[in-house]
Amino acid sequence: MKNSNRRWVLAAHPKGLPKETDWRLEEEPVPDPGDGEMLVRSIYLSVDPYMRGRVSDAKNYAAGVQIGEVMHGGGVGEVVRSNLDGFRPGDIVESMRFHWQEFATLKAAGTRKVDPSIAPIHTALSCLGMPGLTAYFAMETIGKPQAGETVLVSAASGAVGQVVGQIAKLRGCRAVAVAGSAEKLAWCKEIGYDAGINYKTAGDIGAAVAEACAQGVDIYFDNTGGEIHDAAMDNLALHARIIICGMVSRAAEFDAPDIGERQMRKLLVARARMEGFLVLDHMERTPEALAELAGWYNGGQLKFREDIVAGIENVPTALLRLFSGENFGKQLVKVGEEVT
Amino acid sequence: MKNSNRRWVLAAHPKGLPKETDWRLEEEPVPDPGDGEMLVRSIYLSVDPYMRGRVSDAKNYAAGVQIGEVMHGGGVGEVVRSNLDGFRPGDIVESMRFHWQEFATLKAAGTRKVDPSIAPIHTALSCLGMPGLTAYFAMETIGKPQAGETVLVSAASGAVGQVVGQIAKLRGCRAVAVAGSAEKLAWCKEIGYDAGINYKTAGDIGAAVAEACAQGVDIYFDNTGGEIHDAAMDNLALHARIIICGMVSRAAEFDAPDIGERQMRKLLVARARMEGFLVLDHMERTPEALAELAGWYNGGQLKFREDIVAGIENVPTALLRLFSGENFGKQLVKVGEEVT
Repeated sequence: MKNSNRRWVLAAHPKGLPKETDWRLEEEPVPDPGDGEMLVRSIYLSVDPYMRGRVSDAKNYAAGVQIGEVMHGGGVGEVVRSNLDGFRPGDIVESMRFHWQEFATLKAAGTRKVDPSIAPIHTALSCLGMPGLTAYFAMETIGKPQAGETVLVSAASGAVGQVVGQIAKLRGCRAVAVAGSAEKLAWCKEIGYDAGINYKTAGDIGAAVAEACAQGVDIYFDNTGGEIHDAAMDNLALHARIIICGMVSRAAEFDAPDIGERQMRKLLVARARMEGFLVLDHMERTPEALAELAGWYNGGQLKFREDIVAGIENVPTALLRLFSGENFGKQLVKVGEEVT
Repeated sequence: MKNSNRRWVLAAHPKGLPKETDWRLEEEPVPDPGDGEMLVRSIYLSVDPYMRGRVSDAKNYAAGVQIGEVMHGGGVGEVVRSNLDGFRPGDIVESMRFHWQEFATLKAAGTRKVDPSIAPIHTALSCLGMPGLTAYFAMETIGKPQAGETVLVSAASGAVGQVVGQIAKLRGCRAVAVAGSAEKLAWCKEIGYDAGINYKTAGDIGAAVAEACAQGVDIYFDNTGGEIHDAAMDNLALHARIIICGMVSRAAEFDAPDIGERQMRKLLVARARMEGFLVLDHMERTPEALAELAGWYNGGQLKFREDIVAGIENVPTALLRLFSGENFGKQLVKVGEEVT
């Protein structure tokens, strides 16, 4: 086993769009697990849009990362040593507390065992993990899709959006994708989306949404904010639900007020609901949700695409791909070898 | 009986804040009720903030009034002649279709008999009518107040706000009023509000809301939009509900886009819900709601203040009082004598 742990610490709170030098790669001895802890070796690390908030000083739903602190993030990996009942060396586990490093010490709380016989282990960070659960719980608790409704999804080929579209189809809805390239939209069609809008080439996005959602938008699953949000708000069906899940389009202006057209009158005219969603509020229902997602996955009803780059040295670069839209599917970083 | 009917027709679609000359008083013969109709004599007419939308050309939840058409509005009055089973001369009835005139022909649909022995008949346009039902259904279906929560209400001494505050207290909540004068806030205290903010003198309204709602705002009942809305959004408690009921502060800019700070990030951080409300969506539950409101009214738990001006010639003026905040309580116009 390696006897050093490379890890990324926060070097600066970014102003505007984060850049690679906002983090610094350090090397330290592999940590010793204490009582009630285990040492895990990272295999896949997840990079996600919420990380823009974690490196900001602004108020957020979770405390931000401090300068010099290891960058927060989820991962999946192998137990190396364990002082915990129920976790043994060789076990595969997933946690939001792997962070950006090659080794971590984890407690039982927040750590989930992953069964490698069900699906490739990196799916524990994608369709059978946090992004899949986000799509599932947000649709279940806010969207409540009814057969025949129209579901519009931004970042539709992304980690959450892929699952949202397929849940919409499983519920008998029409699903409309918004994404940033013809290739991404082709993938959306392949997994079941009925129509697609390329926001980079559509010109008038509002007109494109009106055309693709002729009966109006019953559910808008908002992963981006920005002008796609505005286009959705201009095309609400009566009693529409708008799920505020992310606002990746605002990564560069994260700490600035979001000035633009406000939505209160549109909400009133459509008697629509706009609600913020955070997956962490629903974790107690994870087992039942994962069981249903895994059933769809193994039944071929849930397809999923990942975009995997290799090397601990590339974690910040991988994160930045999310803000430019370069990623195609759920962005992961492979930082260690799989158990064979 | 008078043999002429004075009525206000729309003369122009207002640009900005409506003015009296946007309507024109005309005189016509008293109409004859057809088959399945009755002739009613107006006693009280209601003026309400929603009327700003009715005189606009913009998309709305109901069709707008056309130039030359009688202005829409609710009223309460006496049946004079009836070609309808179940309605007899002398009956008191309430309808959203009295419109701004001394006589109207009504059908049974949308007309409700009012029992003058329960409460003064003008309450059928106030706490035991549309404004009371608005407060009741919005709190019941969106607000869902829980004991111990904080409920912030804009236009708190207005037609809807008075009832909202008292429902909040009946449900065990802390109720905080926002209104535009010391007299209005004194009345809010008298009917049960725990604290009050004078938005005209508070200076930093956000700081005033933070002080009055130390545990955060669990329910914001928004009758105004504008800077009170912003102050509420800056002080949301986790899982807050924001009821978008009206935006009287924007009467002068009704047809212009509402540009300002957008709320998506605040909704996300607080996992809050913002929803548009329209009382017309809930009319099938009117009988049970009115029974509960009447029970509170007769039990002394629902106090209510009206602001009644006299004369059909003053209806437009009465409406304009809503937009300047001159009214103190639910604005009504008495246009005919009560039945004795």
